[in-house]
Amino acid sequence: MKIDGTAYRSVWVDADDGWSVHILDQTRLPWSLEVLRLTTSDEASRAIRSMQTRGAPLIGAVAAYALCLALRADATTEAMERDADLINATRPTAVNLRWALDRMLTRLRNTPASERVAVAYAEAALIADEDAAQNEAIGRHGLPLIEAAARPGRPVNVLTHCNAGWLATVDWGTALSPIYAAFNAGIDLHVWVDETRPRNQGAALTAWELGKHGVPHTVVADNAGGHFMQHGMVDLVIVGADRVSRTGDAANKIGTYLKALAAHDNNVPFWVATPSTTIDWTLSDGIRDIPIEERSASEVTDMTGRLADGSIGTVRIVAADSPAANPAFDVTRARLVTGLITERGRCEATAEGLLALFPERR
Amino acid sequence: MKIDGTAYRSVWVDADDGWSVHILDQTRLPWSLEVLRLTTSDEASRAIRSMQTRGAPLIGAVAAYALCLALRADATTEAMERDADLINATRPTAVNLRWALDRMLTRLRNTPASERVAVAYAEAALIADEDAAQNEAIGRHGLPLIEAAARPGRPVNVLTHCNAGWLATVDWGTALSPIYAAFNAGIDLHVWVDETRPRNQGAALTAWELGKHGVPHTVVADNAGGHFMQHGMVDLVIVGADRVSRTGDAANKIGTYLKALAAHDNNVPFWVATPSTTIDWTLSDGIRDIPIEERSASEVTDMTGRLADGSIGTVRIVAADSPAANPAFDVTRARLVTGLITERGRCEATAEGLLALFPERR
Repeated sequence: MKIDGTAYRSVWVDADDGWSVHILDQTRLPWSLEVLRLTTSDEASRAIRSMQTRGAPLIGAVAAYALCLALRADATTEAMERDADLINATRPTAVNLRWALDRMLTRLRNTPASERVAVAYAEAALIADEDAAQNEAIGRHGLPLIEAAARPGRPVNVLTHCNAGWLATVDWGTALSPIYAAFNAGIDLHVWVDETRPRNQGAALTAWELGKHGVPHTVVADNAGGHFMQHGMVDLVIVGADRVSRTGDAANKIGTYLKALAAHDNNVPFWVATPSTTIDWTLSDGIRDIPIEERSASEVTDMTGRLADGSIGTVRIVAADSPAANPAFDVTRARLVTGLITERGRCEATAEGLLALFPERR
Repeated sequence: MKIDGTAYRSVWVDADDGWSVHILDQTRLPWSLEVLRLTTSDEASRAIRSMQTRGAPLIGAVAAYALCLALRADATTEAMERDADLINATRPTAVNLRWALDRMLTRLRNTPASERVAVAYAEAALIADEDAAQNEAIGRHGLPLIEAAARPGRPVNVLTHCNAGWLATVDWGTALSPIYAAFNAGIDLHVWVDETRPRNQGAALTAWELGKHGVPHTVVADNAGGHFMQHGMVDLVIVGADRVSRTGDAANKIGTYLKALAAHDNNVPFWVATPSTTIDWTLSDGIRDIPIEERSASEVTDMTGRLADGSIGTVRIVAADSPAANPAFDVTRARLVTGLITERGRCEATAEGLLALFPERR
């Protein structure tokens, strides 16, 4: 997608050297646009762990490139398996990380060590291109939901949580892809953007990328969505996912479950946009089986932003000495999900619904 | 309650001059403890509007004292009625403001102008003392709920939203009063404190006052409570209210409704602690009839806290140019409320339940 008229992806290989990997440093957004150059697997792992690059689909692609960088240093099978494990350990919740690494290893295990680097870069590029194409398809399949909610004289109000935009993927985004598709199609729409505490991905990233694209939006506290739904101010909710069980339970950024409850209570459609790479076909119970990452308490106690003088500062917002806890995701039961939007179309959030779209998983 | 061993109330008349009114500046907490001296009705109104003093029960008492200060300047009936209207206009949602002013006016309208100041101070002191006594009674009636949840070897986990502690009342608090009562009774308990965006009353005030009293607690993002409930980590929820309809619908800080939904979905008891002064006996439909205050967008876009150098700073956390909206309260339907804890005891959140405790309202 575009930033001030220039087309970007959220990860790309350097056009000159042909091997180093570039990402946008998302911890610096929305305050400054900084491109990071990754030259080793360690640097790439650090970028994933510190959330300089984030979003389930995107970290799959970055993990694939991290393995490319690892292979440049040591292309033996032993090193490749060890480095893949190290990369996989950077974030525990997103299934795409494991999926991308498994795909790379499957391709590479039967490749001679001498050819692995070239094959790995080709496979990582395929993963990135497929992600962008998948997300564009999600936008196409989500567009009719927004079209159907259009009413003369008022915008369609869509609520979203966290950032499932192009910044969270290689391009287009998942939850935001139908929104971009609708906006590009000229539909009058407005997005309620949950700020998404504690890391403020909504306030910082979703608001930023929607603003750069010109999509009307309003940032609200995570607490506000239920009130808006009670008063008819939300036509539909679209969120992304970090992992979806084969039964349609969806792990997504902490607080998603609360919005799903409010949507259900107010008959507001609640859609989860998810490429099939985010579906974990081995899991049947999302709450029981999806590990939930516990992140640093400092993400709750401290808040970073722009000071009046324009510099970036961090303030402590919690009373001194009070401890904090920080589970990063929650799981929304399939019964609260109106449906899933995948690259192959929409379906019910059930095992049967998913298998109808992905019969090869039967 | 106590701060570092010294007993405080959240509003009091100066012991030396006998007329000026003192409050704690709650916009400075938890960073510094500053006492404000109010000498005019305008100063008192400004303190209410800017939330230097806040909490439904407390602003009732401060409003009563604001009228005392107004009467010192002009005790004519015309001025009294006008000043009461001005004070009432400072905050639209809390019913206690109207209730306290009506009580004052009822007492004062038949009092000769020359005696009004003395009568007003006596009535305001009664309002304050009754609030403290009511809240202590709420603690007594809420205590058995916490006692009943006690299990050997683990603390009772109570979740609360916003600040309904002694800082929000004249003393004891509403939602926190049963917690103080249980803690003082030696019950092993732990409080999940919702940070309560956008103004962070939980992170700043509830965490501070629980910490000063020694009550174990953990601050969490408002998004986290549903996840904790799904995993059995919340035994009960107790919140306060800004206005309760005669049918048991409860307006409280924005986001309360989402926690009520999560509690209902996970069979976690959800109690609303409310003195009868917070009940609006004229309202039958909370969502339709309770006005919801829309506050400044800057409360969402900007965040104040302590910088690394110890000074207090404000950072902008939302992408530049993105607008924000800030509804301050939401309404939780009575069907989601396990029960109400009042100064006369507990009851179902229904018209019949309330009338059984307050038969004089039939």
